[in-house]
Amino acid sequence: MHLAEAVLFANEAFYAAFAQGDIRGMTELWAQDRPVTCLHPGWEPLHGREQVLASWQAILRQPPKVRCASPQAILTGEDSAYVLCYEVVQETALIATNIFVRQNKLWRMVHHQSGPTRGMPAPAAAPDPSRAN
Amino acid sequence: MHLAEAVLFANEAFYAAFAQGDIRGMTELWAQDRPVTCLHPGWEPLHGREQVLASWQAILRQPPKVRCASPQAILTGEDSAYVLCYEVVQETALIATNIFVRQNKLWRMVHHQSGPTRGMPAPAAAPDPSRAN
Repeated sequence: MHLAEAVLFANEAFYAAFAQGDIRGMTELWAQDRPVTCLHPGWEPLHGREQVLASWQAILRQPPKVRCASPQAILTGEDSAYVLCYEVVQETALIATNIFVRQNKLWRMVHHQSGPTRGMPAPAAAPDPSRAN
Repeated sequence: MHLAEAVLFANEAFYAAFAQGDIRGMTELWAQDRPVTCLHPGWEPLHGREQVLASWQAILRQPPKVRCASPQAILTGEDSAYVLCYEVVQETALIATNIFVRQNKLWRMVHHQSGPTRGMPAPAAAPDPSRAN
């Protein structure tokens, strides 16, 4: 699998766990034995696996109907990358930076920040020819 | 210089350019010949050097009195890292994720997101022993 595709696959797994309230999936997805950090909008910054996973445990008790849209993976090294994507919940969208590292051939999340954005992503997943220029 | 220190140094240079309205410094600081992205709070996502630098040109016409506080550098590879820090403007604070890559021994920014947070960093730059536990 192409590196960027593998990163997008990990990013999809993150939003699947998020939307399905799957704390086991979320726990597996965050990197082990590395510093991890998380910036939920309006929260204090969270540092370390314990704080980060506790926050997800709280959020995933009532998981929002969140959908990832227009994800874009950007490699910053052989084993590091980040994804930008919209997080759509009903009629509103946030925008996120998700940083991943590769550990034992698997891409794991080390950082997540989501925050306000303007507008919404294009409604369809298919490419829109009117946006080509 | 220790890697993390060098990354923090680049992060400081970013906030110095930001606060001083130094568009030349800002232009040098962003990576060349690499994808760059920027998520200003409430803006649409910006992709590519042209869009990103145009946004800074607009912002730096009236630079805010912004101060970086409590920066923390986290390495994600030999040549990639990110910094978390508060951005304090008067009585409010945002929180930022700044991603850097090393090019020709220099750390350059490839991504910036800032967004809302809760609370403020400790007022003093010096370590606060009461926060040690």
